[in-house]
Amino acid sequence: MTDGPPLAEAVEATADDIATMEIRGAATIARAAAEAVAEQAAETDADTPAAFERTMRHAGRRLYGTRPTAVSLPNALRYTLGRMAGDDVETLRSSLLAATTAFTDRLDRAQRDLGRVGANRIRDGDTVMTHCHSTDALACVEAAVGQGKEVSAIVKETRPRNQGHITATELREMGVDVTLVVDSAARRYLDDADHVLVGADSIAADGGVVNKIGTSGLAVNARERGVPIMVAAQTIKLHPDTLTGHTVEIEMRDESEVIADDARADIGDIAVENPAFDVTPPRYVDAIVTESGQFPPESIVTLMRELFGESADRPWEEPDGTTGSASSA
Amino acid sequence: MTDGPPLAEAVEATADDIATMEIRGAATIARAAAEAVAEQAAETDADTPAAFERTMRHAGRRLYGTRPTAVSLPNALRYTLGRMAGDDVETLRSSLLAATTAFTDRLDRAQRDLGRVGANRIRDGDTVMTHCHSTDALACVEAAVGQGKEVSAIVKETRPRNQGHITATELREMGVDVTLVVDSAARRYLDDADHVLVGADSIAADGGVVNKIGTSGLAVNARERGVPIMVAAQTIKLHPDTLTGHTVEIEMRDESEVIADDARADIGDIAVENPAFDVTPPRYVDAIVTESGQFPPESIVTLMRELFGESADRPWEEPDGTTGSASSA
Amino acid sequence: MTDGPPLAEAVEATADDIATMEIRGAATIARAAAEAVAEQAAETDADTPAAFERTMRHAGRRLYGTRPTAVSLPNALRYTLGRMAGDDVETLRSSLLAATTAFTDRLDRAQRDLGRVGANRIRDGDTVMTHCHSTDALACVEAAVGQGKEVSAIVKETRPRNQGHITATELREMGVDVTLVVDSAARRYLDDADHVLVGADSIAADGGVVNKIGTSGLAVNARERGVPIMVAAQTIKLHPDTLTGHTVEIEMRDESEVIADDARADIGDIAVENPAFDVTPPRYVDAIVTESGQFPPESIVTLMRELFGESADRPWEEPDGTTGSASSA
Amino acid sequence: MTDGPPLAEAVEATADDIATMEIRGAATIARAAAEAVAEQAAETDADTPAAFERTMRHAGRRLYGTRPTAVSLPNALRYTLGRMAGDDVETLRSSLLAATTAFTDRLDRAQRDLGRVGANRIRDGDTVMTHCHSTDALACVEAAVGQGKEVSAIVKETRPRNQGHITATELREMGVDVTLVVDSAARRYLDDADHVLVGADSIAADGGVVNKIGTSGLAVNARERGVPIMVAAQTIKLHPDTLTGHTVEIEMRDESEVIADDARADIGDIAVENPAFDVTPPRYVDAIVTESGQFPPESIVTLMRELFGESADRPWEEPDGTTGSASSA
Amino acid sequence: MTDGPPLAEAVEATADDIATMEIRGAATIARAAAEAVAEQAAETDADTPAAFERTMRHAGRRLYGTRPTAVSLPNALRYTLGRMAGDDVETLRSSLLAATTAFTDRLDRAQRDLGRVGANRIRDGDTVMTHCHSTDALACVEAAVGQGKEVSAIVKETRPRNQGHITATELREMGVDVTLVVDSAARRYLDDADHVLVGADSIAADGGVVNKIGTSGLAVNARERGVPIMVAAQTIKLHPDTLTGHTVEIEMRDESEVIADDARADIGDIAVENPAFDVTPPRYVDAIVTESGQFPPESIVTLMRELFGESADRPWEEPDGTTGSASSA
Amino acid sequence: MTDGPPLAEAVEATADDIATMEIRGAATIARAAAEAVAEQAAETDADTPAAFERTMRHAGRRLYGTRPTAVSLPNALRYTLGRMAGDDVETLRSSLLAATTAFTDRLDRAQRDLGRVGANRIRDGDTVMTHCHSTDALACVEAAVGQGKEVSAIVKETRPRNQGHITATELREMGVDVTLVVDSAARRYLDDADHVLVGADSIAADGGVVNKIGTSGLAVNARERGVPIMVAAQTIKLHPDTLTGHTVEIEMRDESEVIADDARADIGDIAVENPAFDVTPPRYVDAIVTESGQFPPESIVTLMRELFGESADRPWEEPDGTTGSASSA
Repeated sequence: MTDGPPLAEAVEATADDIATMEIRGAATIARAAAEAVAEQAAETDADTPAAFERTMRHAGRRLYGTRPTAVSLPNALRYTLGRMAGDDVETLRSSLLAATTAFTDRLDRAQRDLGRVGANRIRDGDTVMTHCHSTDALACVEAAVGQGKEVSAIVKETRPRNQGHITATELREMGVDVTLVVDSAARRYLDDADHVLVGADSIAADGGVVNKIGTSGLAVNARERGVPIMVAAQTIKLHPDTLTGHTVEIEMRDESEVIADDARADIGDIAVENPAFDVTPPRYVDAIVTESGQFPPESIVTLMRELFGESADRPWEEPDGTTGSASSA
Repeated sequence: MTDGPPLAEAVEATADDIATMEIRGAATIARAAAEAVAEQAAETDADTPAAFERTMRHAGRRLYGTRPTAVSLPNALRYTLGRMAGDDVETLRSSLLAATTAFTDRLDRAQRDLGRVGANRIRDGDTVMTHCHSTDALACVEAAVGQGKEVSAIVKETRPRNQGHITATELREMGVDVTLVVDSAARRYLDDADHVLVGADSIAADGGVVNKIGTSGLAVNARERGVPIMVAAQTIKLHPDTLTGHTVEIEMRDESEVIADDARADIGDIAVENPAFDVTPPRYVDAIVTESGQFPPESIVTLMRELFGESADRPWEEPDGTTGSASSA
Repeated sequence: MTDGPPLAEAVEATADDIATMEIRGAATIARAAAEAVAEQAAETDADTPAAFERTMRHAGRRLYGTRPTAVSLPNALRYTLGRMAGDDVETLRSSLLAATTAFTDRLDRAQRDLGRVGANRIRDGDTVMTHCHSTDALACVEAAVGQGKEVSAIVKETRPRNQGHITATELREMGVDVTLVVDSAARRYLDDADHVLVGADSIAADGGVVNKIGTSGLAVNARERGVPIMVAAQTIKLHPDTLTGHTVEIEMRDESEVIADDARADIGDIAVENPAFDVTPPRYVDAIVTESGQFPPESIVTLMRELFGESADRPWEEPDGTTGSASSA
Repeated sequence: MTDGPPLAEAVEATADDIATMEIRGAATIARAAAEAVAEQAAETDADTPAAFERTMRHAGRRLYGTRPTAVSLPNALRYTLGRMAGDDVETLRSSLLAATTAFTDRLDRAQRDLGRVGANRIRDGDTVMTHCHSTDALACVEAAVGQGKEVSAIVKETRPRNQGHITATELREMGVDVTLVVDSAARRYLDDADHVLVGADSIAADGGVVNKIGTSGLAVNARERGVPIMVAAQTIKLHPDTLTGHTVEIEMRDESEVIADDARADIGDIAVENPAFDVTPPRYVDAIVTESGQFPPESIVTLMRELFGESADRPWEEPDGTTGSASSA
Repeated sequence: MTDGPPLAEAVEATADDIATMEIRGAATIARAAAEAVAEQAAETDADTPAAFERTMRHAGRRLYGTRPTAVSLPNALRYTLGRMAGDDVETLRSSLLAATTAFTDRLDRAQRDLGRVGANRIRDGDTVMTHCHSTDALACVEAAVGQGKEVSAIVKETRPRNQGHITATELREMGVDVTLVVDSAARRYLDDADHVLVGADSIAADGGVVNKIGTSGLAVNARERGVPIMVAAQTIKLHPDTLTGHTVEIEMRDESEVIADDARADIGDIAVENPAFDVTPPRYVDAIVTESGQFPPESIVTLMRELFGESADRPWEEPDGTTGSASSA
Repeated sequence: MTDGPPLAEAVEATADDIATMEIRGAATIARAAAEAVAEQAAETDADTPAAFERTMRHAGRRLYGTRPTAVSLPNALRYTLGRMAGDDVETLRSSLLAATTAFTDRLDRAQRDLGRVGANRIRDGDTVMTHCHSTDALACVEAAVGQGKEVSAIVKETRPRNQGHITATELREMGVDVTLVVDSAARRYLDDADHVLVGADSIAADGGVVNKIGTSGLAVNARERGVPIMVAAQTIKLHPDTLTGHTVEIEMRDESEVIADDARADIGDIAVENPAFDVTPPRYVDAIVTESGQFPPESIVTLMRELFGESADRPWEEPDGTTGSASSA
């Protein structure tokens, strides 16, 4: 709950669904948040511009508070609430509606556009090595196949949750030749790969790529073996909080993903650590592929500032800071 | 079967047990082979030195033929049959008995001596990261604990067969603090490790270390993170065939270790590759710890030539080459 | 031929001259194309703004179609046609004339400005190592000499076409001390060099530098020897197609450049490969020197987007895509 | 002295104080220069806009001429004089007063804002290694401590002038645990450090970081040991002259800082070299922390162009170049 | 001419032929020198052992003096004269005859044995990249082909003398698929190579490999691309003088090999440098293949000491040093 | 004090002088110990060989116990006592006297021989960069100067004890041009250096070089700058305990060497760490120069085993281990 004027039903419903993970996935959350902002803007009946803005910020705080660590959620709010402008209620409203439409349009096209950019880097006959499961990464292969290129894939199983099996399934459906290997076999099979192709959970202003645990070790080996590494990530994965130096907190997941409780009991009293992600330094990444084109990781900060403002503003906070929530990282 | 004079029962029994994997493990095979040689030497009743030697070589071929890729088996034969010398049957016999005794004595002490050498590299309070399961590597930790040092361990599970669970169990029994992680988490936890400590399947003359798949990728990351890598390997793991340039054939294991047949069927028509080992170049290894002391990997060739001769002789082959078996690699 | 309204004679003549390579060289092509656009703008007598725009796009397609792989040609069209704006014919025309004038003015100054930037990186007494022949690179040396600095040069001959001889000649004319060496001698003489200085055929959005075959190998060695590498390239060499992931196709040149036909016949049935260019990854380049200043290669994408638009638009294509030609890469 | 109309007393006084080093320190000089510009703008009583501009440029030249190598001084002039705009005297004046206020406001907040950005990169319990003394770097630690984080420091003494002692003193005052070591001990203690944290004398357009002698050697070792390196530098340290390729001249300081004259006489006739700074290539720096957020060093050129213009304009020079002073580098 | 007793005609003839380069090539020179030593030993009719030894040393000096920089020549003398031992003339003579026979026998087998070792490193289907022309390197490919392996080759032309053409011819005769490229194309084609395979002019005690100019640059690129580098060199190429720190002098060859005199005159007054060899540091070499097996380059010093003595003795010099010639390097 | 028979006066006196540091310096200690062994052997009047041996071992323990961490002391004892052999007292005595003479003869020649080896690596006109003060390193320069070569030196002052001043003084006396710099200036001046030349405190079996703090950081920078690093060390510096994995304990020296007590009090409550040495990994060392020739660091283990036995025997200990002292490391 957050303090402020009553909110549109759509905002409350969306907030609940995000909080309960009914709505999940970076793009789905972002779209839902933008649509809720649009609903709120359409429904808000305010006497003064200030009152309208207050209500919209309140809606923003309500949505933001549900999953402050989901990077696409504040990005959707920044992109929409951040473009609210005008001297009267109607202008404010229409600026918001325009911004939410622009944002959802962008989302509609983003993965397809990104896929095309990534596909252009892949040549006919190339082999990609994948880690984990990323629809952005797969969109690149799909577009390449759509361009008539023959593509093969070496798929790392990606312990502990074996998302590589999902990747393998989807690549098979595209008609891609798939070889499945354990994660430890990566260095050996890098000699057969033309690209390492992964997605991203988020991307930091210092060029670091936060992605499934094991990405950074793979990238170090790919560089050592001379294989370029391509990261496919829509711009909603850019992490504006990192502009101000915030580091991305790495989720520690349930230990039972790593070893079943009884097997663990057999071993004796051991600790199990199960971080979900790691950070790949920019010097091991060759290109970040977005719907806005490809970038060296060292340049992504420029795109981030262009899209989300220079200082990672939080347009859902009150100017006097009274009810702004704490930093997410 | 090999051509030649009838052999001692002990030789036949040992050969059968090695072939059926009743006898397994590098040291166990080596010991059994040496003891069978001793039995044969004790029992052989020959008229001439030449006849004695022929019988012994025949026994050697019989044993060698059971598992030509198990590096400790030809090493046991080289060490024993290669020291057969004398002008009469009794001298030949006693030279063999002395050599087999020396060899089994060496085996008796090897792991303990090696453990002490490795332990000396470990300081009180150090954390080791392990991959797979190696009794040689564990002997180093055990000796360090025996020296009163507190040692912690980060244990990689080591897919596909999870030998890390065995390692974790044995380390717990020594009183070592154990943290279990998936293989992909290695780079993150290298920042907490003072040593990478692994065993070896075999070691080549060019300094390459053949060990469980994933070792080379771990070593590359350990170097990148500034963590020294120590390989613990008794000298029976040295691979004299590689003196003459032979490469070590990497066993491809059953695909069902990687993915269950039904899960695989669900994905569709994919290939699965399951190499058992990979080769770590010497430039990523800081020290090879043996019962003869520690060596930079680039110097191991000197030890190999000292122990097994310069040209990887096969003292079980007839001088005229009539019944020598083909190269193992 | 392309579909559309009849074009100015100057456009047809320029298109023919580019197609027949009467007009060649990145800057010369760019200037001719811009001037043809200006001619077309001046001469086009249209009833409606839409008709005017259509004619201009048609002229753009006519020109573009002559050498779609010459990166400076589409850049000239982007820079000029991309700035066509207005609600009536005269405004459209004047916007185009202003843009073409701005572009040719820029071209007039570019090499001189670039040379000054590059010269500022060179200290009195420095030695540069060159590869191939690049007027942009030589402009840097010339400006440095003009600043009163003493400069020496180690000139790689640059097989197969020995453009190093041209470089040597031009450096001599500037009064530079020249030492000519075969390409293989580069690593040895890098110890005597303070800079590696090369031009570029084109520069990609991921920071890759496409230049004469051998540049990337030289850059790897320069980094290993601790010598910084400077790439001199006017901004017309930036390759906007690569913003969307397109890779640069490497021209394979005639095999007889590598070995005379009779010498080849003497050897027997061999293949000969003669790629004209290779791609140097940005991590081996220290600075890209342009007429707009110097940039780390990882930042060149920002300049590319600023000059040519974010998505490598093709302002010569019809908005409905009816007659746009296919991608060049 | 420079040619031109008489100047405000405040300008002359400030110029004198900068010249005599009464006013010193990058931020202090910048503020004084901006305030002098404001004074001059307030006092100038001109008949024509052109006369007003001439007077202001003259004031700029007067100030610039006092310490042309202090990078913050021309930056203050660029930021203020470069924003002078208008068609009449009053508009020109107010544009200048607004720019000087904006600039000094920025200065007021810069170190605090920068400190917060840097602090966000530091986690609770981290250890930083410092070199020399930098208030910008210390602001990061101070802000981290202010965030309630426990921070330790390994402080290099930083020969020849032992500025590490000042750093140690100030860190102690913040309550930071300090370990002092000689500069040569850096590599050994990097194993205990989570960050290398240094300031900068200036930052070049190619991403090079000019800082106290020893920084580059430390950075190379930090990379080898896997420790990230963070540079804290307000944007007044960015060096716009380097946009056009100028290199930063390294001051050679008095030899007696290195060895006392009598000790030197005892040794005999030796040379002593005492460079104040060295240049760390961008590939050894992980992040540059400014009051405008953090940047990979390869992206700093974009910020530099945004703040100070693309071509390092010198708004204090007459458009006809008649009295502009020579390049500083 | 050297001082001492008159020599056998065979010695004088051989010395003349080596001096005039009638006899050339490392192995041919070594064999001729050994045979001359044998002739001298057979013919020398001495009253005392000391007189016999003096004559033999004189013969050694005569031979050594003809080409002191040809490393195989002193090696042949070391191997033979260094094994002269005995208390009477006949024993001395027979020790020498045995040593010369052993040496020439070794030479007879060396290239074939070396070829087999090298072939064992090559797998069926592999592609080797070659530089210059080396019969030792080609012996490896020939043996691999003889083992039934399919081998392809990328042959660098090796300016300035294009010895790659000879290599291409001989590989074609073996039935190897050959692709000829210019030296500058190496990095691009390394992605298609499984081995870099070169010979050596000589090998130093610090592991450095002296070989045709361009080898070290190729090795640096091969490491960067992840391709192992194999050096094929008979042990007569080991350079015992380097045991005592001597560096190998690099021959500067005629400048007209690089550019024809008239083309040079056209350019103007330039220097041309044409070093014949360069030195590849051991860290870029994966294995040195000799007739005594393969070695990491860091271990070759052990083999060198074993074959030629620890201190690079010069058994042709008088013990009192009266007529020993000066160091060769 | 150690248990055992009464010892020769010379042994007691030498032991006292080593313990009180009257006798210091690796070579001086080694010589004194060997001479004391010889005295003891000459004076010992024993009834049985066993009694003689017991007395000699007792003398060894007495000497060893005075400075167990001085590596040259046990090496002198190993070299001499380790060669004690014979069936009667006189043979034992003479074997010892021969061994002590051989050892001291070797010491007499060692630095001169080593100097010659190192000098051979230095070319006329070369510049060496030094760290700390090492008579072995200086012997190389002196020999080079003696060979008529012109040598220059960049001398790091080597905080905290400024041994660089001694080095500078001695180099001046040889006529070498000396430039003194602070330690932090090393990377900048490496561009002017042809060699890094340092001594060693001891050398480990894994190739690690223990030397004055700062050596390893210098070596990392030298590799990055492309400058080879040469370590000059007599074989008495080889550390046989490391054959069995022992690490070398790094002495922590007095903190007042780093900062005067009052200056420290001014700063407040800080820790000061002052390690005397660090360990340079073998991969950063190009050659170790000894009196037995030069070696890659990875091969030094072979020399160590040859000189001091394979298992770092302690010939001063009783076979039953009753009075052997504990391990030194």
